Amino acid sequence: MSMSDPAQQAAALLADFRAANVLAADCPSRLVLGHLTSRWGTLVMIVLATGPHRFSQLRRSIGGVSERMLAQTLQQLEADGFVLRLAHKVVPPHVDYSLTDLGMEAAAHVVALSAWIEAKLPEIQGKTAMAAE
Amino acid sequence: MSMSDPAQQAAALLADFRAANVLAADCPSRLVLGHLTSRWGTLVMIVLATGPHRFSQLRRSIGGVSERMLAQTLQQLEADGFVLRLAHKVVPPHVDYSLTDLGMEAAAHVVALSAWIEAKLPEIQGKTAMAAE
Repeated sequence: MSMSDPAQQAAALLADFRAANVLAADCPSRLVLGHLTSRWGTLVMIVLATGPHRFSQLRRSIGGVSERMLAQTLQQLEADGFVLRLAHKVVPPHVDYSLTDLGMEAAAHVVALSAWIEAKLPEIQGKTAMAAE
Repeated sequence: MSMSDPAQQAAALLADFRAANVLAADCPSRLVLGHLTSRWGTLVMIVLATGPHRFSQLRRSIGGVSERMLAQTLQQLEADGFVLRLAHKVVPPHVDYSLTDLGMEAAAHVVALSAWIEAKLPEIQGKTAMAAE
């Protein structure tokens, strides 16, 4: 991987940020980044990247999430257009959650960042330990 | 881009998460993700991806950040091994901040995610508007 690519992309991004004033605290891009990188948002995106899930399946897949927090996380991601909620009118009724095309693109980036952190964690923790000495 | 790649990567990531119990709230990977995706952490990584900066240059580049928050953000990223702090023993003294090799890799992912959100924001906001109707 050429290291000039992220540098050029970063420079272009900063120019855009300045032009659009998205450094401002209330910029919607900060909200979207927050939704995707929140504790439960990241995990929901990763689980849904593996395929559609029902609410109860999602809750089981993501240990420790409350019903309320999972519902709120799904609502945010649905409002951003990343998650599709599909209610089947059958008996008993059930609801499927899946990623939209936009959501699959977002998930690819979230998965890449998370996988990179996981892979590099021993190295990162080594540096942290050294820095604390 | 094949959509099966993120799906497979997500499945492998979930398997790792379960094996390592990193779904736990106190997992260090959550802290690192938090440092990289915090309001100022993301911006510092993006600015430093364009090249080394002095503290005062960073502050000017990132509008609205306080001296205290910038110092704290840099300390976190330095402890994670992403940022290198180099104090030059000259008169007057000055300090350069740059990305380590690990930091360049992290920045590439952060820049990619941020650039994607910026590029797709009109589409995302369109969905949000539709969802609110």
